[in-house]
Amino acid sequence: MASNTFGQLFRVTTFGESHGEALGCVIDGCPAGLEIHISDIEKELERRRPGAVHGSRDEQDKPEILSGIFEGKTLGTPIAIIVRNTNQNPADYDKLKDIYRPGHADSTWDAKFGFRDYRGGGRSSGRETLSRVAAGAIAKKLLSLHGIEIKADISEIAGIQDPEKIKIRLEELKTEGDSAGGIVNCIISGVNELSGLPIGLGEPVFDKLDARLAAAIISIGACKGIEFGAGFTAAGLLGGENNNDKNAGGILGGISNGQDIVFRAAFKPTSSIKKLQTAKDKNGKEVEVSVTGRHDVCIVPRAVPVVEAMTALVLADFLLLSRSSRL
Amino acid sequence: MASNTFGQLFRVTTFGESHGEALGCVIDGCPAGLEIHISDIEKELERRRPGAVHGSRDEQDKPEILSGIFEGKTLGTPIAIIVRNTNQNPADYDKLKDIYRPGHADSTWDAKFGFRDYRGGGRSSGRETLSRVAAGAIAKKLLSLHGIEIKADISEIAGIQDPEKIKIRLEELKTEGDSAGGIVNCIISGVNELSGLPIGLGEPVFDKLDARLAAAIISIGACKGIEFGAGFTAAGLLGGENNNDKNAGGILGGISNGQDIVFRAAFKPTSSIKKLQTAKDKNGKEVEVSVTGRHDVCIVPRAVPVVEAMTALVLADFLLLSRSSRL
Amino acid sequence: MASNTFGQLFRVTTFGESHGEALGCVIDGCPAGLEIHISDIEKELERRRPGAVHGSRDEQDKPEILSGIFEGKTLGTPIAIIVRNTNQNPADYDKLKDIYRPGHADSTWDAKFGFRDYRGGGRSSGRETLSRVAAGAIAKKLLSLHGIEIKADISEIAGIQDPEKIKIRLEELKTEGDSAGGIVNCIISGVNELSGLPIGLGEPVFDKLDARLAAAIISIGACKGIEFGAGFTAAGLLGGENNNDKNAGGILGGISNGQDIVFRAAFKPTSSIKKLQTAKDKNGKEVEVSVTGRHDVCIVPRAVPVVEAMTALVLADFLLLSRSSRL
Amino acid sequence: MASNTFGQLFRVTTFGESHGEALGCVIDGCPAGLEIHISDIEKELERRRPGAVHGSRDEQDKPEILSGIFEGKTLGTPIAIIVRNTNQNPADYDKLKDIYRPGHADSTWDAKFGFRDYRGGGRSSGRETLSRVAAGAIAKKLLSLHGIEIKADISEIAGIQDPEKIKIRLEELKTEGDSAGGIVNCIISGVNELSGLPIGLGEPVFDKLDARLAAAIISIGACKGIEFGAGFTAAGLLGGENNNDKNAGGILGGISNGQDIVFRAAFKPTSSIKKLQTAKDKNGKEVEVSVTGRHDVCIVPRAVPVVEAMTALVLADFLLLSRSSRL
Repeated sequence: MASNTFGQLFRVTTFGESHGEALGCVIDGCPAGLEIHISDIEKELERRRPGAVHGSRDEQDKPEILSGIFEGKTLGTPIAIIVRNTNQNPADYDKLKDIYRPGHADSTWDAKFGFRDYRGGGRSSGRETLSRVAAGAIAKKLLSLHGIEIKADISEIAGIQDPEKIKIRLEELKTEGDSAGGIVNCIISGVNELSGLPIGLGEPVFDKLDARLAAAIISIGACKGIEFGAGFTAAGLLGGENNNDKNAGGILGGISNGQDIVFRAAFKPTSSIKKLQTAKDKNGKEVEVSVTGRHDVCIVPRAVPVVEAMTALVLADFLLLSRSSRL
Repeated sequence: MASNTFGQLFRVTTFGESHGEALGCVIDGCPAGLEIHISDIEKELERRRPGAVHGSRDEQDKPEILSGIFEGKTLGTPIAIIVRNTNQNPADYDKLKDIYRPGHADSTWDAKFGFRDYRGGGRSSGRETLSRVAAGAIAKKLLSLHGIEIKADISEIAGIQDPEKIKIRLEELKTEGDSAGGIVNCIISGVNELSGLPIGLGEPVFDKLDARLAAAIISIGACKGIEFGAGFTAAGLLGGENNNDKNAGGILGGISNGQDIVFRAAFKPTSSIKKLQTAKDKNGKEVEVSVTGRHDVCIVPRAVPVVEAMTALVLADFLLLSRSSRL
Repeated sequence: MASNTFGQLFRVTTFGESHGEALGCVIDGCPAGLEIHISDIEKELERRRPGAVHGSRDEQDKPEILSGIFEGKTLGTPIAIIVRNTNQNPADYDKLKDIYRPGHADSTWDAKFGFRDYRGGGRSSGRETLSRVAAGAIAKKLLSLHGIEIKADISEIAGIQDPEKIKIRLEELKTEGDSAGGIVNCIISGVNELSGLPIGLGEPVFDKLDARLAAAIISIGACKGIEFGAGFTAAGLLGGENNNDKNAGGILGGISNGQDIVFRAAFKPTSSIKKLQTAKDKNGKEVEVSVTGRHDVCIVPRAVPVVEAMTALVLADFLLLSRSSRL
Repeated sequence: MASNTFGQLFRVTTFGESHGEALGCVIDGCPAGLEIHISDIEKELERRRPGAVHGSRDEQDKPEILSGIFEGKTLGTPIAIIVRNTNQNPADYDKLKDIYRPGHADSTWDAKFGFRDYRGGGRSSGRETLSRVAAGAIAKKLLSLHGIEIKADISEIAGIQDPEKIKIRLEELKTEGDSAGGIVNCIISGVNELSGLPIGLGEPVFDKLDARLAAAIISIGACKGIEFGAGFTAAGLLGGENNNDKNAGGILGGISNGQDIVFRAAFKPTSSIKKLQTAKDKNGKEVEVSVTGRHDVCIVPRAVPVVEAMTALVLADFLLLSRSSRL
């Protein structure tokens, strides 16, 4: 698996730098006959471009489908989707050209590739998740046909759970030029409450459902941890306490057991802050830096549709893989 | 990637049921010329077979190398290693044949495959990790040549950190017929303190170093969560607080930055307990069950070398992959 | 490997239908720092769009690079290239909507996917090779840096080897509304005659250099056969006669031996001919059909750059893979 | 895909050197519930160990199943099969230790890996095909359940088609210390003549049925060419002549069309001959060499079951993959 491709049967390849010509994805392996309308993708991208969400930057993201859809349905061929970058102003980034912003991948990319697109983080920008959301929109349509629904939401931000208090705290942090992290909760459930989720999704031994979900979610830029069901709490329980389905989080031995699948993901605070920080430049010299621009005070609200998208990609893949279990 | 194969360039395929003829692995992609002695593998398997460790069952695991080594060195061809199962007594499991043990994969395997090896969990047994440890031993040798060292240890068991108190608590639980979970801590560091870890391991976007480590570790049977660097704690920090290398856990943008890589993994308590539990049988009928046998009161001590092995497999793969970053 | 992705480290994903919005490719795994200019791609596409070549249809194929190149060099991130379809007139194909053209994939696609883009063959059109050529242009640049050159040419068309006679024969066939097949010869050699080709490209056992080349070339639409070195002739030779390097075609045991690699590929005649043929329609009814449009009398001249492109993709991949053979 | 693993869903990993401890394979992805008896494997291995076949060396190959089968049926877990090497006498090979036998992979392996198992060719020995045949036996069982049958036979040896004359010619060559090549013909057909082969096997664009078969067959040691349907002959036909199903060889656009699939594969003469040849040694010095031992005068008879096995592996994989084409 190349590093910009995800999945085995339902496969997504993404591309694009933050300030390049365009970002996009190619979805290969989506079964033929699935009805797709451009609005299915726009709707999800809109959730990621959070006008109403506190402290998020504004972007106009118009998807275009280049292939794979004919007469409103998938052909079984690769679905290419692109979103052009507009109103990028590379000049904004000239002053950061030689500085390794704290918490960012600037230094590691330079070390690895000897060279990088310094404009807004290039490929390591959070903007990359746009491609994931576009691809996830297709996966969600497939899953919904098979009675599977994915719903993520904000569990807490800056340690606060009350939405009103979160809002106030984020305004404060904006003023202070600082940022906050948080936790996203995600539930995968059956659309039909009676039948529940399909049983048997996930593949032993290395491609357990939770293992693949973990890779999918941790691969999102700022994610620093994930737990399933009782998670870290389970580590402190006794066997007699822990042995019930709720703590399992819907997965036993890496395979879905038909109950809701539940996981939580931790996101670190936005690394780009206006507040002065000490950083290093290309030559190892210490410099004071204030990272200005349209950065989110907290990326957690925008991470919600990304978590859903990555979850959908994993589930769609396992749905197709599960067709090979039996004769 | 088939579900019993792990890795892209340094690849491991494992096989074997708990009470079948043998377990083993095939390591494909190990560079030629690496010195390997059978004792390298025995030593790691011995750590997983913890005589001295509290509450672990005894096994005699003798590895045999079938291919890939010639005159003491790897040939660049697949290295096959097998360990025969001895003294298994399938009769022990006859009474559990039609019962779905709580916390186990019995029901999900039946649902997925329509059929399963009920003897000790078959392929979903913790015994499967033996193959991982054997393969990890080869990966460790390769890594050590490149100055990389992996060291996992017990962070806490049953919420307790003091080794002496853990010992006492496990004895109590054994008597009570119950079990405990815990947390494993893992550090990847450079053998040479001055040069540190290689920078540039990990591949953007989906194969970030932490994403692949997460999949590797969560794929271990009882693991329910993982966090890198400050992990879930980072979710409550402000950007100004979190933006330092210690919290990053040695990884920025999915790529190693040369500092120690640190993660923690949560393991649930052993599902097999002597204490009476309510279970369901194949026909959905509720039954009372006591799972007897040589089960570990706590698998965390034996998870330590497994965590190291999986970490080694990920690192070895990224070491080879990193050779493609530049012209 | 999904079916629209090719390669393991140097990986290409292609997309696009003959009469959809655009065709294109995403190249993942190209090392960073390689100089690429849009003209590198245009030049190869131009060879595929053979104005001067006898009996080929005219197309205007303008490539656009969407990502992966910064300041004229590859970033190590995915390189997305698209070519918009222009002046397609789907109405041309309405009359063939329900007819399975002889020699084409119309019937098999309908059987497989239950549905197809009937406009010019959709994804199964020869136009799909445009994406291969665009990707191959990048691979060629990488190879040329490492002293590897690929040169394909026409060995024969309609059984004729003399270029002048071929030209006359193709004019005749055009008048008759018929078509011709032919054979393409391909040589991979070292740019520097003294040093020759790199030794050691190709991976045992299943990814032998010739095995992967065979898959690459046979995957080109009309290709019906391939032979390496002495090929089918070798089947009639004695060991004493055959055991010389020339007959090996530069490959021993699936690995390059430093000498020129030589293979020949057979292409069937264009299936789309004006001449009346008996075909079946969707309902199994026999109909007489004349396939009009701008079809090539012989696709062999245009197959030449496609053969080179696929060869380049294989070689680029093996070049990167060969870096893992040793410690 | 690592080079010793073949297939995407029905996957086989092989291992073993000619004179090492054992050879074998691990089959991952075989659906659960398939009845397998050790005799299914023995029967195919016996066809490869051709007592009655002219000029083949004798071996006793006893397969042992280590995992994946329970109560006579596949579990859906990896099936590991090993065959121990017996009566190998490495001393036989000492004199060839530093000599690069003409037509063999000795020199290329040394160049690639810096080191090789010189005993009988090590991993590059034809004995490696034993693992393919063992795995193919499982694939054949799966295919036969789905009405698919594979039948290969000798088309010609040393340019001769008459079996009696072939026999005589091989005896002559044995006496002369020389060897012969030949052509294998293979037909894939439906067990039930009325229903024929399944339509829709094969995946566009790069994983066309013929492309994958080509890779599978050319990956067999001595194979130098392959052609489908009319093959190289088609290159000389006109479109009007070629456009019929017989010439297509059962494949249109890379997808099976329900008719018999037909291909021919060319095998070079055995490289190991008793006749004196000029070879080079490790230091580039020319030496005269006579390769003695139990080498086949012609490997074509033994290639027949290997061709069938590889074909079965490809078909089994596509059978499972075809389940993803539709919703």
